Amino acid sequence: MDDKAQIQEAIKSQGEIVRKLKSEKANKEQIDEEVAKLLELKARLGGDDGKHQFVLKTPKGTRDYNPKQMAIREKVFNTIVSCFKRHGAETIDTPVFELKETLTGKYGEDSKLIYDLKDQGGELLSLRYDLTVPFARYLAMNKITNIKRYHIAKVYRRDNPAMTRGRYREFYQCDFDIAGQYDAMIPDAECLKIVYEILSELELGDFCIKVNDRRILDGMFAVCGVPDDKFRTICSTVDKLDKMPWEEVKREMVNEKGLSEEAADQIGEYVSMKGGMDLAEKLLQDPKMCQSKQACAGLSDIKLLFSYLQLFQVTDKVVFDLSLARGLDYYTGVIYEAVLSQADVAPAANEAPNGTSVEESVSVGSVAGGGRYDGLVGMFDPKGRKVPCVGVSIGIERIFSIMEQKAEASAERVRTTEVQVMVASAQKNLLEEKLRLISELWNAGIKAEVMYKKNPKLLSQLQHCEESGIPLVAILGEQELKDGVVKLRVVATREEVDISRADLISEIKKRTSEA
Amino acid sequence: MDDKAQIQEAIKSQGEIVRKLKSEKANKEQIDEEVAKLLELKARLGGDDGKHQFVLKTPKGTRDYNPKQMAIREKVFNTIVSCFKRHGAETIDTPVFELKETLTGKYGEDSKLIYDLKDQGGELLSLRYDLTVPFARYLAMNKITNIKRYHIAKVYRRDNPAMTRGRYREFYQCDFDIAGQYDAMIPDAECLKIVYEILSELELGDFCIKVNDRRILDGMFAVCGVPDDKFRTICSTVDKLDKMPWEEVKREMVNEKGLSEEAADQIGEYVSMKGGMDLAEKLLQDPKMCQSKQACAGLSDIKLLFSYLQLFQVTDKVVFDLSLARGLDYYTGVIYEAVLSQADVAPAANEAPNGTSVEESVSVGSVAGGGRYDGLVGMFDPKGRKVPCVGVSIGIERIFSIMEQKAEASAERVRTTEVQVMVASAQKNLLEEKLRLISELWNAGIKAEVMYKKNPKLLSQLQHCEESGIPLVAILGEQELKDGVVKLRVVATREEVDISRADLISEIKKRTSEA
Repeated sequence: MDDKAQIQEAIKSQGEIVRKLKSEKANKEQIDEEVAKLLELKARLGGDDGKHQFVLKTPKGTRDYNPKQMAIREKVFNTIVSCFKRHGAETIDTPVFELKETLTGKYGEDSKLIYDLKDQGGELLSLRYDLTVPFARYLAMNKITNIKRYHIAKVYRRDNPAMTRGRYREFYQCDFDIAGQYDAMIPDAECLKIVYEILSELELGDFCIKVNDRRILDGMFAVCGVPDDKFRTICSTVDKLDKMPWEEVKREMVNEKGLSEEAADQIGEYVSMKGGMDLAEKLLQDPKMCQSKQACAGLSDIKLLFSYLQLFQVTDKVVFDLSLARGLDYYTGVIYEAVLSQADVAPAANEAPNGTSVEESVSVGSVAGGGRYDGLVGMFDPKGRKVPCVGVSIGIERIFSIMEQKAEASAERVRTTEVQVMVASAQKNLLEEKLRLISELWNAGIKAEVMYKKNPKLLSQLQHCEESGIPLVAILGEQELKDGVVKLRVVATREEVDISRADLISEIKKRTSEA
Repeated sequence: MDDKAQIQEAIKSQGEIVRKLKSEKANKEQIDEEVAKLLELKARLGGDDGKHQFVLKTPKGTRDYNPKQMAIREKVFNTIVSCFKRHGAETIDTPVFELKETLTGKYGEDSKLIYDLKDQGGELLSLRYDLTVPFARYLAMNKITNIKRYHIAKVYRRDNPAMTRGRYREFYQCDFDIAGQYDAMIPDAECLKIVYEILSELELGDFCIKVNDRRILDGMFAVCGVPDDKFRTICSTVDKLDKMPWEEVKREMVNEKGLSEEAADQIGEYVSMKGGMDLAEKLLQDPKMCQSKQACAGLSDIKLLFSYLQLFQVTDKVVFDLSLARGLDYYTGVIYEAVLSQADVAPAANEAPNGTSVEESVSVGSVAGGGRYDGLVGMFDPKGRKVPCVGVSIGIERIFSIMEQKAEASAERVRTTEVQVMVASAQKNLLEEKLRLISELWNAGIKAEVMYKKNPKLLSQLQHCEESGIPLVAILGEQELKDGVVKLRVVATREEVDISRADLISEIKKRTSEA
């Protein structure tokens, strides 16, 4: 155990750090982090009574969802799942952890962010980093060659959290993937149609779906003179273009990755290009690009993709953008990413008023991404049999953040329960009668509540209805019991009417189905 | 790395173990476990090409859910969530891991089963062991003094899995809890009503809800002469009464826990008692039991509880059973556990035909449990403020196992998608027209599929409908396009009718809402 004096010393200096940051009006996240450290130290010291004090917090980068957040989350999930089901997807689930070796070698430079479990005897395990690798493992293990499935579950990354911008260490992914040997670009186009539908239905404001192809990137690197063994690392540098200006990206390529200035400049020309089917056609005529068979194959597929997207009437939001790279190692063909337009993500600045850099306000925009990964399943199959796959992942945490802000901003109250009626009484000693009645209501499928007190005040019962948006109150009293009726009160209008016990259930159902 | 020859040697001896077990017709689980070890060894050796081979499995004690299992799971969850919502519950979510110290000291002897995360720098973390302790942490952290919430999520225990009987290392819990300072036994009775409703609606066959009270157990231990410091350990021995005969339980008390033979025999008399309100009344008159104030308080509450349960009309399934102990440390009052009647759990023997012991066939019965824990939140509150809580956890994995067996046994096919219509064609070169049509259907909210092939055979399109239960096919052909119609085919009857494009959407909606 640490020495008490030593901890007190640490608390003192940590307290100074916090005070300094506050006086400098530093970034809120940074302050929160240092405050958390301070609390932890204080907890280690324990209370005055010497009793051990718990650190009352969730682990770094994680959060609880309160009922209001859950109500919003449920709404968002319903929209997304409805879309996946509309497109005929089944769903599967996989364990939260996998054998460590299942994840090894799938994420390139990001592998260091994987959470490992402690070796407590038995297998070496890691928390899943995404849903794609477990999906590929599932396909190979069960020898499934075609499936269209969605999977909504939490994944884990030991990343630097930026929670105010919806970036967590534990976060949901909503994945939709199509596995199978099919004709080119048909499933790929459906994935983009799905992104279009979901982002439109969620009413997140204007958005744009960037599209590119790994083969075009690789071909471009080849014709620009990037050595083969540098493709992946240069690719992850290009991937930073949405977060830093070209000059910085170029500097990283040349200074850190050792690329020639000339090659970098050639890449710079290409990655500034954006367009639609026309750009794909133009590049197919580009004498340099044409030298790469890979690039040509990618460009032809982009053309075909756009023709299908036209039939789906979604080309207004789709841009062929040669700067789109996406970091993950496993992509082999088309890749895409959806970003919200800046105008609509302005509240980000609202969340982190201090020190919001360009990087922060830009990166909040990405809300969906995916692509084709034809080689991943083969990495798991003992005979290397390939199952071509294409999929999309909805970045649900950022969507939650935006929806939460919208809910905060709007006057509308978010209900966290669905209770239709409160069983109440004005007089005392009616608990038994109330329990008898509420039991009847529950048995008839009506959502009902009663106070857990023998003799609650009518006012407090009515107040509870106001606060939680319960529309009806069924009031019992001596007279009502004698008359075989229940007084049904409409909370909003305060209108009251006597309903016979026999008609009560149908009356409640009628009134609440109208609402 | 291991030496190749050494691994080959290990494979040889492991192979012999497997062969021996198979020849002895050993327990299926045991064989599976040894086979898994063999596969792992083989994988370590690698293939003939020297390439590393993956072990294609999920971690021990975990499983994937395939689409059919997910369809069943969704149905079960819907029933349970509907019930929770009917009773006015909100929902929350907490992270899958907690600070290690949050879980420390909450689970008594079971703490050794907690999964820890590897120390990768930063906080020490553990996977949640149940949903109750995170709930208590949530209440204390947010200073919430009353809430009625449900939480459905996976929990983790490094237990010995017995997967054929629905016992996993990763499994779902469905918890409903009522926190707040209320009048005695009203929320407790509602929890039992909820168990009754859920088990009835799921149609799992006959069941029984055993009820007891920690105070009655402790009072009983006291009057029987158990030393104070042995209450908990004797309690966990009593807890085994549903798995072993009294003689064995007694032997453990006397030989392992050092209890006197006399005290054990007195306990033996009490724990054989079962009844209803009458038994509580009888024990309130019992001269020995009466010596314990605690026991009297517990018995009075059991009486009160039964009076509420009578109003809820659920006493036909509730039994006051003094042998019910429940292992967890945090219970302070009423405890309960629901078990399915043996007759209906018979398929358990079906699952594990070899070596099914009495223990196995009995323990499969428990499908819900819970109780009152008035001290847990106070353990987290810096000032020790208590928030009384009572709750119930539905043992969903066992319910899944039973539902899966029922689905297997019944002829009815479980649909894994909700697709209403397949867009198809008999002729070639109609892909574009099909994509245009399906896009219209999707935009109108209709669940629709199209084959991802340019020119699929009509037969294979129809076969897909048969296999996945799609009720309608919208067939396009040159003639239909010319006439501005679509041929709508009913898969079940093979009836076909031409519908104008303008009426197609309403026609599909009409036909599928009837279904």
